[in-house]
Amino acid sequence: MKKNMNYRDINLLDLINSPKELRKISIEELETLSNQLRSELINVVSKTGGHLGAGLGVIELTVAIHYVFNTPEDKLIWDVGHQAYPHKILTGRRRQMETLRQKGGISGFLKRSESIYDHFGAGHSSTSISSALGMAVARDKLGKTSNIIAVIGDGAMSAGMAYEAMNNAGIINTNMIIILNDNDMSISPAVGALSNYLSNVVSSRPFNNVREIAKQMIEFFPKEISETAKRAEDLARNILNKYENTFFSQMGMFYLGPIDGHDVKSLVKILRNLKDGLIHGPVLLHVVTEKGKGHPFSKISQEKYHAVSKFNLVEKDSIKSNSNAPPSYTSVFSDTLCKIAEEDNKIIAITAAMSSGTGLNKFEKKFKDRFFDVGIAEQHAVTFAAGLAIEGLKPFVAIYSTFLQRAYDQVIHDVVIQKLPVRFMLDRAGLVGADGATHAGAFDLAYLSCLPGVVIMAPSDENELAKMVFTASCYEKGPIFCRYPRGEGIGIKVEKKLESLKIGKGRIITKGDQLAVLSVGTRLGPAMDAAEILEFEGYSITLADARFVKPIDEGLLEDLYINHDGLLLVEEGAVGGFSSNCLHFLSSKNFFNKHSKPLKCLTLPDKFQDHATQQEQLKEANLDKIGILNELRSLISILEINPKIEKENRFRNS
Amino acid sequence: MKKNMNYRDINLLDLINSPKELRKISIEELETLSNQLRSELINVVSKTGGHLGAGLGVIELTVAIHYVFNTPEDKLIWDVGHQAYPHKILTGRRRQMETLRQKGGISGFLKRSESIYDHFGAGHSSTSISSALGMAVARDKLGKTSNIIAVIGDGAMSAGMAYEAMNNAGIINTNMIIILNDNDMSISPAVGALSNYLSNVVSSRPFNNVREIAKQMIEFFPKEISETAKRAEDLARNILNKYENTFFSQMGMFYLGPIDGHDVKSLVKILRNLKDGLIHGPVLLHVVTEKGKGHPFSKISQEKYHAVSKFNLVEKDSIKSNSNAPPSYTSVFSDTLCKIAEEDNKIIAITAAMSSGTGLNKFEKKFKDRFFDVGIAEQHAVTFAAGLAIEGLKPFVAIYSTFLQRAYDQVIHDVVIQKLPVRFMLDRAGLVGADGATHAGAFDLAYLSCLPGVVIMAPSDENELAKMVFTASCYEKGPIFCRYPRGEGIGIKVEKKLESLKIGKGRIITKGDQLAVLSVGTRLGPAMDAAEILEFEGYSITLADARFVKPIDEGLLEDLYINHDGLLLVEEGAVGGFSSNCLHFLSSKNFFNKHSKPLKCLTLPDKFQDHATQQEQLKEANLDKIGILNELRSLISILEINPKIEKENRFRNS
Repeated sequence: MKKNMNYRDINLLDLINSPKELRKISIEELETLSNQLRSELINVVSKTGGHLGAGLGVIELTVAIHYVFNTPEDKLIWDVGHQAYPHKILTGRRRQMETLRQKGGISGFLKRSESIYDHFGAGHSSTSISSALGMAVARDKLGKTSNIIAVIGDGAMSAGMAYEAMNNAGIINTNMIIILNDNDMSISPAVGALSNYLSNVVSSRPFNNVREIAKQMIEFFPKEISETAKRAEDLARNILNKYENTFFSQMGMFYLGPIDGHDVKSLVKILRNLKDGLIHGPVLLHVVTEKGKGHPFSKISQEKYHAVSKFNLVEKDSIKSNSNAPPSYTSVFSDTLCKIAEEDNKIIAITAAMSSGTGLNKFEKKFKDRFFDVGIAEQHAVTFAAGLAIEGLKPFVAIYSTFLQRAYDQVIHDVVIQKLPVRFMLDRAGLVGADGATHAGAFDLAYLSCLPGVVIMAPSDENELAKMVFTASCYEKGPIFCRYPRGEGIGIKVEKKLESLKIGKGRIITKGDQLAVLSVGTRLGPAMDAAEILEFEGYSITLADARFVKPIDEGLLEDLYINHDGLLLVEEGAVGGFSSNCLHFLSSKNFFNKHSKPLKCLTLPDKFQDHATQQEQLKEANLDKIGILNELRSLISILEINPKIEKENRFRNS
Repeated sequence: MKKNMNYRDINLLDLINSPKELRKISIEELETLSNQLRSELINVVSKTGGHLGAGLGVIELTVAIHYVFNTPEDKLIWDVGHQAYPHKILTGRRRQMETLRQKGGISGFLKRSESIYDHFGAGHSSTSISSALGMAVARDKLGKTSNIIAVIGDGAMSAGMAYEAMNNAGIINTNMIIILNDNDMSISPAVGALSNYLSNVVSSRPFNNVREIAKQMIEFFPKEISETAKRAEDLARNILNKYENTFFSQMGMFYLGPIDGHDVKSLVKILRNLKDGLIHGPVLLHVVTEKGKGHPFSKISQEKYHAVSKFNLVEKDSIKSNSNAPPSYTSVFSDTLCKIAEEDNKIIAITAAMSSGTGLNKFEKKFKDRFFDVGIAEQHAVTFAAGLAIEGLKPFVAIYSTFLQRAYDQVIHDVVIQKLPVRFMLDRAGLVGADGATHAGAFDLAYLSCLPGVVIMAPSDENELAKMVFTASCYEKGPIFCRYPRGEGIGIKVEKKLESLKIGKGRIITKGDQLAVLSVGTRLGPAMDAAEILEFEGYSITLADARFVKPIDEGLLEDLYINHDGLLLVEEGAVGGFSSNCLHFLSSKNFFNKHSKPLKCLTLPDKFQDHATQQEQLKEANLDKIGILNELRSLISILEINPKIEKENRFRNS
């Protein structure tokens, strides 16, 4: 690092415990501070992993905002929160940065409970304008005067809710500052007409400098006018709009920009002007930044930039996890889809700005004309797919479980009610580790299995996933969902010749006759481990893989319940999904009356689980081997059953 | 009617069984046809009730589109479907119009299973551009050449998903025609900056006539260019955009308009030009119409126009239902909120374009500055409320259960995870009658009760609703939901002095010791009726009102289960909600082992229920008095229990 260092010897960050100290620094020192903050950020993320590019792009912006505004009384609302690491460092969390995204450590996103500087928790994108508008209106009603500043990326602007918020802000017309952080590269490269439009704006005019901006503002908004003559202001705004006529001014905002987001002194000057409240109503400040600015690696794919594993600063390479590790579920999905698509040209793949995250980047390379990245626009992605399905194509919508929440109504209203064969591939289902509660795919089984006529699959291993992708490609009767977890498979070989599964049929893994375990999804692995321990002790256990969350395999469930002393249901999802369906079925058959026997359900706990490793989270949820084993032991103790095979006999037999 | 008749004697509609016949009519006759269609529509809706205003606004547009385009090979996609009645009349459903929205009759919305002319089912708004884009892309992939036409209202344009779709259409850049039906009056008067913008566009220039439009098109897009020189076309488009620079051209569309939507001949000429495919890429045709044009009543509120009850054409008044009927749940909510807001100035009310439907129009009148109609923008409504709650205000978001699906992610991510005290009032929960499956509030209990830390209430009568609204106003610990049905209460008096309910506590209505019924929501009424019949027969029945779907009253549930021979759970919601929570609790307590007794759950069936009256739907779902009684009788028969009190004794005692 040393040879690149041309900063002053003092690390200014050492002086800053909160924005209060930051504001004591002279404006001349802000550039140095920004450089130091950049080094610090790269250094810490090299140890912890996490989202780096977004933070590097907003170093100067973060410094300037906290420098100019009186945070936390003035409210700074970050969109998504990927970009909030510099903000965390400057707001008293510098020492905790090394605990980033680890159990008990600080979150990788904004979090209200973590800091008074985090006004709005944000893990999903495009929420900042709505929440900021709410705060601005509340400020007005309560007779307060604080500034409200939302920072939103150009990618996040492609989401419908950002538009809904602008549309409303343009009418409510209260003071707020929306900073559009335009790096033309959200998670995947930004797509969409608006993004094109922004590029045109940026390329068609030079960066506005402070003097120009000030001139614009003063020309049209002399202070007297803004204070006394609302009508004149409207007139002036109309003139300006006519002059500018940008997308944003058409949405009722005062548009300023574009300006260079890495020129910290200019940023400070412009923000000071805005702080003075010269302009009434919502202002959109268009700031152009470079995502990943100052990043030590030069040739990393745009999306890979988004979140990184730990890396080695000297060797400039990510610290690779074991290369012999089994493939991730994501890549098994992706490879399988590519394979099927080779032979079936009706297959279409759709992502909402998560081409690499969902593995569809492979598909994109091979079948460019059958691949659609619609931007951060899950609602549109789903209904667009519905349109494709109507015409006889075979759309696969690959989306994270947590993000499908954004398109819930479209799933119900545009796909399920109309029985359209759209294939939903829900990646990151269940617990997701370091991304924490905002990204957990905890509710999909509950919110989907209540819907009539759907098929929901959950593979127990990577080979099962491949079969399910193939099954989805063959299934034409209606919507079909497949949900699979983040992370690596269990190392089982994926069969070359794929066969379609029988819809609604599970499979028995091992056959016993004392206890039965019916698991759905990848909890089968630890359930198997737990069962093995008990079998080793001589108990006789049936282990079954439900495969389908809906329709449930009624025959299998009946068999497991009736022909065993006790039954355990296991799913990595909230109450309301698979086990609920099973309980309803058993109750409808009056089995709870005919057969009194213990029945337990292991589901996700009724709480939001904080970030930690996936394994730690699973342990906390009692869904790891030990958790499942404990539940089985509790059944054994309730039943007061003994091992069928004496331990000695067992050893003799084996 | 006669004295207004200046049409020719023949009713042209008699000649038209499908658009094929329509196309045989001369262009000169289209105006007459439009007038006849308008009369027919008013006449039929006066008998059936339904959405009238929207259809009246698009008479000429509907005629022109079917006249010019080769439907159904050319695909016409209506947004929402309120406006589709004229379309239904022209596409072979004229004779069925009198069965509109009735059991076994035709739907009030678009429905794929109803007609080959209904390409996309639509009950919720703003889906047309996405689905049309999907169909357009599929057409290209499959080498077909059909025209794709989406008709979307200006109100529907305020929803984020319309924006997501335009953003994507502007990039995909395939041929499609989006007709913006701008009547500046969606359900409530259109709100939002875009709506303002459209008004400005319309008022700042005269209607474009055919010659001007043709000139515009030909000037910039001579046929040779569109066929051969893509680059030149782009250039031309850029020039045009510079010239026009409308919101829509910035979104990558070719903007044409505004034009008069009631001039059927001009519409035909312009559509013919567009049909010829002169313009490559998405075209937005801005058509200005008058909602309710030709409606016999003059002074009806804008929103009331939206959907009407049956009315009398001569007396020009709606046929009122019994004026002694109990107040609707909607109005009890609204009155209660107004009452609370008198004394608590932190109460804020938010609607997404359903001011009258949710009853908030009363609130708006009284507390204009605490009322927000954000437009058709449920996502923003919820996150906006989150911002208000953060600052200490008390937001009530009143929204139909079915429309909250649009904001599911915002509920989870922006409110529930952050434990913000946003109050959700879910109207039209459960079965909704004539609006059918697209509008049923069937899933709310399932998709909400899986969320950690939420409180969900469901009142059993109007007085309970008033208490729950008050409870919500007092509850500050986190999100709270209250869901109540469409329609009238049961006639119980609403207490003047409101008290807050104890969170998570149900109540026992009648006490017995043989069977127990635990009901949540307004199914309590029929459950009571059913129980009374059995009590008359001498059975001893405990009837309880859960009040809370979450947290469930564990003590009450335990008591009911343990101290009775059998238990029936009743809810008007899909599997996954209240009963599921109860089953999980009982299973976790190992009660199914300790006590073998029958337990039945009455929920909504696992199917989409078609339009009918609410009562017919409830009957179909076995959730009316008879359905509940039958379920109780089946428990009695399983248990082989006898009446506790002999019938004779009972008579003697009474």
